[in-house]
Amino acid sequence: MRAAILAIGSELLGTERLDTNSLRLTAALDRHGVELRKKSVVGDSEAELAAEVRALLGRVDLLLVTGGLGPTADDVTREAVAAALGRGLHLDPEVSAALEARFRAFVRRMPEVNRRQAQVIDGAVVLPNAHGTAPGLRIDTRWEEREATIFLFPGVPHELEGMIADALEPWLAERSAGTARSSVTLKISGLPESEVEERIAPAYEEFGRESITILAGGGEIKLIATAAGPEGERTARLAVMADRLALLAGDAVYTRNADDTLEQVVGELLRQAKATLATAESCTGGLLAERLTRIAGSSDYFPGGVVTYSNAEKSRLLGVPPELLAEHGAVSEPVARAMAEGARRSFSTDYGIGITGVAGPGGGSEEKPVGTIHVAVAGPGGRVAHRRFRFPGGRERVRWFASQLALEILRRLLLDVSRPAGSTADPGQVAKAVESLWR
Amino acid sequence: MRAAILAIGSELLGTERLDTNSLRLTAALDRHGVELRKKSVVGDSEAELAAEVRALLGRVDLLLVTGGLGPTADDVTREAVAAALGRGLHLDPEVSAALEARFRAFVRRMPEVNRRQAQVIDGAVVLPNAHGTAPGLRIDTRWEEREATIFLFPGVPHELEGMIADALEPWLAERSAGTARSSVTLKISGLPESEVEERIAPAYEEFGRESITILAGGGEIKLIATAAGPEGERTARLAVMADRLALLAGDAVYTRNADDTLEQVVGELLRQAKATLATAESCTGGLLAERLTRIAGSSDYFPGGVVTYSNAEKSRLLGVPPELLAEHGAVSEPVARAMAEGARRSFSTDYGIGITGVAGPGGGSEEKPVGTIHVAVAGPGGRVAHRRFRFPGGRERVRWFASQLALEILRRLLLDVSRPAGSTADPGQVAKAVESLWR
Repeated sequence: MRAAILAIGSELLGTERLDTNSLRLTAALDRHGVELRKKSVVGDSEAELAAEVRALLGRVDLLLVTGGLGPTADDVTREAVAAALGRGLHLDPEVSAALEARFRAFVRRMPEVNRRQAQVIDGAVVLPNAHGTAPGLRIDTRWEEREATIFLFPGVPHELEGMIADALEPWLAERSAGTARSSVTLKISGLPESEVEERIAPAYEEFGRESITILAGGGEIKLIATAAGPEGERTARLAVMADRLALLAGDAVYTRNADDTLEQVVGELLRQAKATLATAESCTGGLLAERLTRIAGSSDYFPGGVVTYSNAEKSRLLGVPPELLAEHGAVSEPVARAMAEGARRSFSTDYGIGITGVAGPGGGSEEKPVGTIHVAVAGPGGRVAHRRFRFPGGRERVRWFASQLALEILRRLLLDVSRPAGSTADPGQVAKAVESLWR
Repeated sequence: MRAAILAIGSELLGTERLDTNSLRLTAALDRHGVELRKKSVVGDSEAELAAEVRALLGRVDLLLVTGGLGPTADDVTREAVAAALGRGLHLDPEVSAALEARFRAFVRRMPEVNRRQAQVIDGAVVLPNAHGTAPGLRIDTRWEEREATIFLFPGVPHELEGMIADALEPWLAERSAGTARSSVTLKISGLPESEVEERIAPAYEEFGRESITILAGGGEIKLIATAAGPEGERTARLAVMADRLALLAGDAVYTRNADDTLEQVVGELLRQAKATLATAESCTGGLLAERLTRIAGSSDYFPGGVVTYSNAEKSRLLGVPPELLAEHGAVSEPVARAMAEGARRSFSTDYGIGITGVAGPGGGSEEKPVGTIHVAVAGPGGRVAHRRFRFPGGRERVRWFASQLALEILRRLLLDVSRPAGSTADPGQVAKAVESLWR
């Protein structure tokens, strides 16, 4: 099966936005071994869109269209696709009723323009949208003597995501038995890309360079191993590859699940250790707390934190002695340590994290240039781990890396008290690494 | 002149990378008033690429192709475009000599494969590449009775950037005298897209539907007005359009600068009012503080905030009476108000924001379903503004919308004390709107 993706929206032809939806669709196609031949983007022009649909139908069997299903006048996908196929449109009473019910649930009157979203192309199958107003459509058609299928999806990312799971994946699964590809992703933090590359070099030779991809970004590394073929064989091969890569990369691997985030893994370790955590942030301004609380259920181990942007608040809320601030400055090891201890003490938690640094663009000095960060983690028994680091890049990047470093230090400390199931790291090595963190 | 952009490369059809080069090309087209009709991506297949070139030449006058000019076997752009146009290829001795000289300059022998890069399509103009080995090509052709021009550029971003400046911009400038385009962006928060659409409907008729775009996302709306023509005329027209749109949309317009964020505008208003702010967050978990501190210099008006995820911490850090929590529950108007007042009091600031809600996916009830948010803003004189809202979508979205709502309420309250320069909102209307917020 050959597929194409067509994204609709004049904003996607501007200088600001890219069609990121196609990445999600591509992932779904990949999982079912369907080859993507082409992606295209056209604006909100009915004629242009209809012409593109006709051109694509001549070349592929499966056409995935996103966007242009909204209620406003520039949403022309329904009309354009109907025109391209020479079909009519009708108002679907069931869809219309569902739309009205949805607005009622949010105690809002349905604007009259939204009724356009109940227009359905003749012969199309309506695909319910669990997360928004615009339903999707599936149209099976014949084009130049061949069968072809068109899916129309909304362009709003989380609505699309729901419909990929609910409508597209099951449809693909029925048609792709035996040709599927799959992959496993190992995520690594606390190591530079070049070192990961060196560590895993033997695996390139053992499994073939094509089957392993390294991606760096956001202060972490993804190692993606891919295998194709019948399910049993594929799954077995992936398990072997993942084990081998994990062994080579060591305990820097924090998960084997592409969807896991570092804050999620740390949260799970806290939960396993029945431990609690509080945060004290200066330059990260709440980013660490925000990341920890992205995880549903984080209230089980995270009672809260403080953002102490001013020195006065560092003293008032965390008990950092004003003399310490005066002597060493807010961006210093003693202050980071005092913040971590203050957070732990004041929230009565097992662990406390303190972060202070110069996020930039201003505020740097020769001694403490922009990007300088001190992270401290206070733990049971009054021990405090501390790391100083200097990150390159702008304010946003420095803040992100600082939160990443804080989570990674805590993860390593927690590994010591709560070995996760399936960890391949050598216990002796971990103990040694953790011991050096506390120093 | 109508243009299309075609990016070549199988890696651009995967799940990890997007064609970001097109943004740079679009910006150059924009500057010269050339309309981009379509973007597409195809893999490293000669047949697919040739078919796409032929399809695009039927629809546009200018085709910008990036990628596939490298030395390896999967770089097929030269061959495919030659085939699409029915032209031959020849080895250009000058290009070949320049390639060899480039390798000598880096004290390297030229690999034999690189000689492919000296292949030039018959009749093409060679475009020197100051930053890499692959030269670009420009081909002027006739296609279906019309003149068309094709540019072939390398896909390496910094090489492309150099060639846009050296080859594309001068070519566009010669052809676009007086037709350049520019745009102005109004950003709106606190209104749904359909209401903005209704409000600005008259402007569609006055200026033409094509010249105004509405984009919704992240809890705000962008209104983009575009004008073409000679510079003076264009600037004047944009100013008229922006004024008219601002008048129609009302004081929901928080900026006329596409780069401004809501947290930035609120920060500027705080600065103008010489006021300070503290935050008390429950369900947003630090997101509001994190957004406020994205702005360099925010320490001038933001001394800090607290994340009180547990009830105990709401009482300890913010003085929320335990009876209030017991009687109304943490997600309630009285608790949001007490949090806002507690933040204002404990940080000794002019304003305090309290946010409490059910971000989901768990924790919802019939009375307080997932997405229910209470935001309170305590201000000078002991007044407290409060809003209850229910947002659709997942945890991340609900949290974002809650932070957006909090910033928007504060912005409106600050508008009352600190009129921004250039605000077109009617002072009487603002006063009324603000008065209703405090109730």
